[in-house]
Amino acid sequence: MERLTEEAIEQALTENKNWKRLDEKWIERKYRFREYLQGIEFVNRIAQRSEEVNHHPLISIDYKLITVKLSSWNARGLTELDFTLAKQYDDMYHAIGRDRNES
Amino acid sequence: MERLTEEAIEQALTENKNWKRLDEKWIERKYRFREYLQGIEFVNRIAQRSEEVNHHPLISIDYKLITVKLSSWNARGLTELDFTLAKQYDDMYHAIGRDRNES
Repeated sequence: MERLTEEAIEQALTENKNWKRLDEKWIERKYRFREYLQGIEFVNRIAQRSEEVNHHPLISIDYKLITVKLSSWNARGLTELDFTLAKQYDDMYHAIGRDRNES
Repeated sequence: MERLTEEAIEQALTENKNWKRLDEKWIERKYRFREYLQGIEFVNRIAQRSEEVNHHPLISIDYKLITVKLSSWNARGLTELDFTLAKQYDDMYHAIGRDRNES
């Protein structure tokens, strides 16, 4: 997959306002959870998805705060896949919130 | 739980040779896995245990390399609980290795 142009990255960031750019090659988002094990469940879901598409983010777990960073090693920068996954992680985050509210 | 003395920390570190001290207040170990989802399973196990004892380590997931850092916030340093958990995480790591070899 090809690295996105600066223009395309800027455009993608306006569509993913919860993500911020870091060090040119990375995008990052922090997800906060009400319960620790809810955050761990989120990590499981993004890990499963990452394995399916063979594209693994960096994940840090600091109690109820989960930080996720995406980049494409092969392309040495950001690709469409990074932003596709960013959106999917956001959807998973909202789904976990809904699961909890319904239980 | 009380903060350990320097002497007790030095002693505990000689008994936990895979752990190294960081910035006075922390101990850290890096665990490497053959498969990505094996590392994620390890994260699940240490997270469950951490929740049981209400003592949560910092965890970073960088593909098949998992970094775990322990400290006791309340004691503003290292306590016996940090070293007890360090040993338990090591046992879980070896158990996952055995699971894989037997499967």
